[in-house]
Amino acid sequence: MSRPDDRAPDQLRPVTLNRGWTVHPEGSVLVEFGQTRVLCTASVTEGVPRWRKGSGLGWLTAEYAMLPRSTNTRNDRESVRGKVGGRTHEISRLIGRALRATADLKLLGENSIVIDCDVLQADGGTRTAAITGAYVALHDAVHWLAGRRKLAGSPDDVLKRSVAAVSVGIIGGEPRLDLCYEEDVVADVDMNIVCTGAGDFVEVQGTGEQGVFSRDELNALLDLGIAGCLELTELQRKAVA
Amino acid sequence: MSRPDDRAPDQLRPVTLNRGWTVHPEGSVLVEFGQTRVLCTASVTEGVPRWRKGSGLGWLTAEYAMLPRSTNTRNDRESVRGKVGGRTHEISRLIGRALRATADLKLLGENSIVIDCDVLQADGGTRTAAITGAYVALHDAVHWLAGRRKLAGSPDDVLKRSVAAVSVGIIGGEPRLDLCYEEDVVADVDMNIVCTGAGDFVEVQGTGEQGVFSRDELNALLDLGIAGCLELTELQRKAVA
Amino acid sequence: MSRPDDRAPDQLRPVTLNRGWTVHPEGSVLVEFGQTRVLCTASVTEGVPRWRKGSGLGWLTAEYAMLPRSTNTRNDRESVRGKVGGRTHEISRLIGRALRATADLKLLGENSIVIDCDVLQADGGTRTAAITGAYVALHDAVHWLAGRRKLAGSPDDVLKRSVAAVSVGIIGGEPRLDLCYEEDVVADVDMNIVCTGAGDFVEVQGTGEQGVFSRDELNALLDLGIAGCLELTELQRKAVA
Amino acid sequence: MSRPDDRAPDQLRPVTLNRGWTVHPEGSVLVEFGQTRVLCTASVTEGVPRWRKGSGLGWLTAEYAMLPRSTNTRNDRESVRGKVGGRTHEISRLIGRALRATADLKLLGENSIVIDCDVLQADGGTRTAAITGAYVALHDAVHWLAGRRKLAGSPDDVLKRSVAAVSVGIIGGEPRLDLCYEEDVVADVDMNIVCTGAGDFVEVQGTGEQGVFSRDELNALLDLGIAGCLELTELQRKAVA
Amino acid sequence: MSRPDDRAPDQLRPVTLNRGWTVHPEGSVLVEFGQTRVLCTASVTEGVPRWRKGSGLGWLTAEYAMLPRSTNTRNDRESVRGKVGGRTHEISRLIGRALRATADLKLLGENSIVIDCDVLQADGGTRTAAITGAYVALHDAVHWLAGRRKLAGSPDDVLKRSVAAVSVGIIGGEPRLDLCYEEDVVADVDMNIVCTGAGDFVEVQGTGEQGVFSRDELNALLDLGIAGCLELTELQRKAVA
Amino acid sequence: MSRPDDRAPDQLRPVTLNRGWTVHPEGSVLVEFGQTRVLCTASVTEGVPRWRKGSGLGWLTAEYAMLPRSTNTRNDRESVRGKVGGRTHEISRLIGRALRATADLKLLGENSIVIDCDVLQADGGTRTAAITGAYVALHDAVHWLAGRRKLAGSPDDVLKRSVAAVSVGIIGGEPRLDLCYEEDVVADVDMNIVCTGAGDFVEVQGTGEQGVFSRDELNALLDLGIAGCLELTELQRKAVA
Repeated sequence: MSRPDDRAPDQLRPVTLNRGWTVHPEGSVLVEFGQTRVLCTASVTEGVPRWRKGSGLGWLTAEYAMLPRSTNTRNDRESVRGKVGGRTHEISRLIGRALRATADLKLLGENSIVIDCDVLQADGGTRTAAITGAYVALHDAVHWLAGRRKLAGSPDDVLKRSVAAVSVGIIGGEPRLDLCYEEDVVADVDMNIVCTGAGDFVEVQGTGEQGVFSRDELNALLDLGIAGCLELTELQRKAVA
Repeated sequence: MSRPDDRAPDQLRPVTLNRGWTVHPEGSVLVEFGQTRVLCTASVTEGVPRWRKGSGLGWLTAEYAMLPRSTNTRNDRESVRGKVGGRTHEISRLIGRALRATADLKLLGENSIVIDCDVLQADGGTRTAAITGAYVALHDAVHWLAGRRKLAGSPDDVLKRSVAAVSVGIIGGEPRLDLCYEEDVVADVDMNIVCTGAGDFVEVQGTGEQGVFSRDELNALLDLGIAGCLELTELQRKAVA
Repeated sequence: MSRPDDRAPDQLRPVTLNRGWTVHPEGSVLVEFGQTRVLCTASVTEGVPRWRKGSGLGWLTAEYAMLPRSTNTRNDRESVRGKVGGRTHEISRLIGRALRATADLKLLGENSIVIDCDVLQADGGTRTAAITGAYVALHDAVHWLAGRRKLAGSPDDVLKRSVAAVSVGIIGGEPRLDLCYEEDVVADVDMNIVCTGAGDFVEVQGTGEQGVFSRDELNALLDLGIAGCLELTELQRKAVA
Repeated sequence: MSRPDDRAPDQLRPVTLNRGWTVHPEGSVLVEFGQTRVLCTASVTEGVPRWRKGSGLGWLTAEYAMLPRSTNTRNDRESVRGKVGGRTHEISRLIGRALRATADLKLLGENSIVIDCDVLQADGGTRTAAITGAYVALHDAVHWLAGRRKLAGSPDDVLKRSVAAVSVGIIGGEPRLDLCYEEDVVADVDMNIVCTGAGDFVEVQGTGEQGVFSRDELNALLDLGIAGCLELTELQRKAVA
Repeated sequence: MSRPDDRAPDQLRPVTLNRGWTVHPEGSVLVEFGQTRVLCTASVTEGVPRWRKGSGLGWLTAEYAMLPRSTNTRNDRESVRGKVGGRTHEISRLIGRALRATADLKLLGENSIVIDCDVLQADGGTRTAAITGAYVALHDAVHWLAGRRKLAGSPDDVLKRSVAAVSVGIIGGEPRLDLCYEEDVVADVDMNIVCTGAGDFVEVQGTGEQGVFSRDELNALLDLGIAGCLELTELQRKAVA
Repeated sequence: MSRPDDRAPDQLRPVTLNRGWTVHPEGSVLVEFGQTRVLCTASVTEGVPRWRKGSGLGWLTAEYAMLPRSTNTRNDRESVRGKVGGRTHEISRLIGRALRATADLKLLGENSIVIDCDVLQADGGTRTAAITGAYVALHDAVHWLAGRRKLAGSPDDVLKRSVAAVSVGIIGGEPRLDLCYEEDVVADVDMNIVCTGAGDFVEVQGTGEQGVFSRDELNALLDLGIAGCLELTELQRKAVA
């Protein structure tokens, strides 16, 4: 059984991290995992929300959204529906947690960074691509702050670790790395793995979409996911070099 | 280092599953994990939403909410704020997925079951208590349908497996089962584990709230969680016996 | 013509007032009028809303809601619909007015008390049960404040009078006290009466649901309602003794 | 103690009922109670809402709103705030119940009538003026239907009784009829009375805004209110003659 | 081809500007363009929104809305639908821009004026009638401020120019001034022209509703519109004289 | 006085029309006017909204939105705020009208096309760039339908004319074509002109942002705008050749 794009089970799609893709944000990265294309921007503002003032801590949050026709069929805009959907909420929160795990908010000082991840084209793995790209946008925003002497520490200390993410899943009994949409919809188990550059876990989310999964299957997926994240980490390092 | 209520690290809080706690729903269970108290009701309606008609499949969904003063300080009502929050969305979706993993929607026939999990009192682990109680409410609703000969299969076939859930976490380096609120807020890693009665995974969600976690730590948490779910499964079996 | 539960026309259902039913709120009462079951909590916060600061007056407000399956058939959540319905608004305002009639807001000092009345199970008379239980929760919250020396007067002066409420109605020409749901839906006239412990009126709301009513009928209903409220007052006194 | 406009305690303000005030609606009445000015329109559509189809019953409902600067200081629009407030909901429901008490929905046939009561200028008693004017607009709409032979009975049978409403209150110990705003804000007791043309009650709503009220005070207010409603009934009769 | 009301192509409908139509607002004008009837009120508050404080500039904004049955068939209330529609937004913004073009916000001082334009009856041209009436309400509000010595300049300097508006359109090849509804719905081109009293443009909005239009047609419409605005300016001058 | 990018007053910015920029939509164009970058997608569905069924007419509508950090400072998402803003509504409606002017909805048959214009990067003229790009996306969607034999006419008859748009304005007395953001904010007059390929007007919207404008100034702007639209038309022709 071969994959739709003939990849090996443990092979990532071609990944690109295009920095400075738009000119206004302090960090702006177009990340591509195959046909999945997400624009990740980091917006810096001095100061923090009112309830956090005087805490000495920075503020780092994320929002995820899909363009209405980023997918195969058009989805109504959440602005028109008048509310943010459950899936959107869930992914925004995941991205925010992942990025906060990388940063020392004390050393960030009382600055706010909002990460926006807007899916321009979706082909599976949008949330993991978003995390992987958002880290690079965050990196650039932190260095932007450093250049203006706004940080309470060096950028390397503010970003105490890097973070990358990838999806893994089991299709027809085979564990696979970095599922495209066609694989995602038929996967028996679907897991998103967020790792630091050192290979530790930041977040592990596995779901038996169509069934359940054993401890052995979980272990196989974790192996694939950690290896994938380490590859992505390498690409991030090259991108910001 | 002892736990706030002197439990062993691998010990559940006292758990009760009180069936028929309210009279109107087809299934109604007050579940308690220590001081955490969640009312889980299952509401049956004949027929399915319009877009699903003629599919031959049933519909099973879940909603979670907290009473405004179920917690230590009062939270504004989501109805008054005019929108469902991200955390609420996330947990409702988790409960729905967990329950759908137990049921054969084809054998359920074109019937709808809505599970409501309302937290009357919160002390950590509300989502896992909700799943554990909701399964029993679902069980009763399915048998209610069986009694009216509305199922397309036997209730045992409709509910092809049971499901239970528990939280685990690492506090001060120690992996612990079934965190209460006081533990939850200081945990370095927080994980929710949803297992079938056979000990397979339905869902695994681990987050390094205050940091990151290693493969070994993950394994220790999984061991604790599986054991806890099996204990809960036994309590569910007794409750419905 | 007998009542569904064989009560006399002027007989209340069994009423219980269970104090301290949950542990977090400063006042927490589970009130039962027969099968109607409402959780009334009183949440204290120091200070008052910004627009009221410096007024020397406290703030006392109430919110009412029903769990989705507290009734015979499930109602959609108002949080999911994104707005509070007219009936909910109306009852929340009624409860708030009733409780504010009991309290001297000047002596309460600049403290806020929010009363939440959540219907866990509905069988008619939820708003009157809510008022009756909420008074006891308010009583406990005021004494909690007294214990922390936060009041500008004694608790007995802050709560200058007690308040209780009951529904009355005319079914098939017969005036009856404390209607259950089965009676409520067929009543020609439906009236809610809120009285002080001294038998004065705080609020009278009568509606000819299916018709109109004469002055004599109104008088008969008022007689029943006042007597019922005095009985409830006695139960409140015992509960807080 | 004299009234702001030197009326006797049992005297209505000058009341006008201006039929056909706008050209589009099937009934359109500008009602004035002194400076209170409400535009009441009745909009007829053939057919009833989907869930009521085939019932053989008509549908009659009401909506109340205030223009933003109908009052002394400007209120934000509910459309801009994105939700209907509690007071608006409460009054809309009151008007709807009052009008439904006049009509035989079976004889109305499967037609829908929506009554809109928009306050152009407010000076107390807007809800009672609205009911009094809305009855005349409803009358005209029913006759409009009769003219098109759309009713299942004669217009006199469809409108089996008339309805009028007035506010009463106690100011400084004195019961007064038809309070203007200046009186309304200082009233100890505030009551709205809705009566049929025959002097029966449709709705009685009394509130001890600043205190409580005795049975004798209630009786004095009812006397005033019934007399006021009968006067208004006479004005309605003349208006539609 | 004659017009529905036999006007000449370059003839306005009868226009009235009724000042002081309601008593509460600082400016209140009922404007009529034939059967189109709009209540324009100007509400003054001292001070400006928080973000504008200390700027030395006043604040002037406008809101437009239609009563639900101002039109031929009833429209749902935007408050009930929970959101302001696109057309309403668009017209509110147009009115606000037109009025701000008349005023020197520096000389207005840190005062806020909100213009509300509520359509009581619609027969085409509601937005242009609203602008024409709103200018007079604004005039009265500015003079009200002058009377209280709240302006930073003379009222004539604050209102540095007047503004009036009219619709024009092409029906069956003929350019016409001030379209009524019956003409509006069949117009091939529809244009709203907002002019100062000196005949300069403040805003020009032309749309080929059913088609496109040439430069010559545009010029013919502009000629008509400017002449119409100058006539309206004259009526405004008389109204405030 | 030179322009920020040294263009001549009647010179467009570099314009590109990148077809097929994303893979899912039936038409997908990335349009650039200098640094302004808008993704225009056309989504086809068979059938029309329910209320239009059986009319024999197609349905063509548009939605415009900006990514939160497409601008110099971040704007909150409209989905998070829970409502679509006035400016967004206004522009969406403008784009929809412009595109409907190009199409024969009868020949389109009962098919629906939704045009989404999402601003990825903003530097003035986003609405005119959107219209210019959206026409090309619409063109591709119509040909997609033609290829599936779903049209009731030839694609050339369905798209009876092309449409393009450009902004013009007066800065410091000088009329200029295609304003960038830096010019837009200081313009005394701002006008958007939408023309057909034949140079007829579809829409003309001129506003005296900071003042008023004369007939001569209007004419100068129209001359510039028509010429600019004809240049854009030529670029559209090349793009779809």
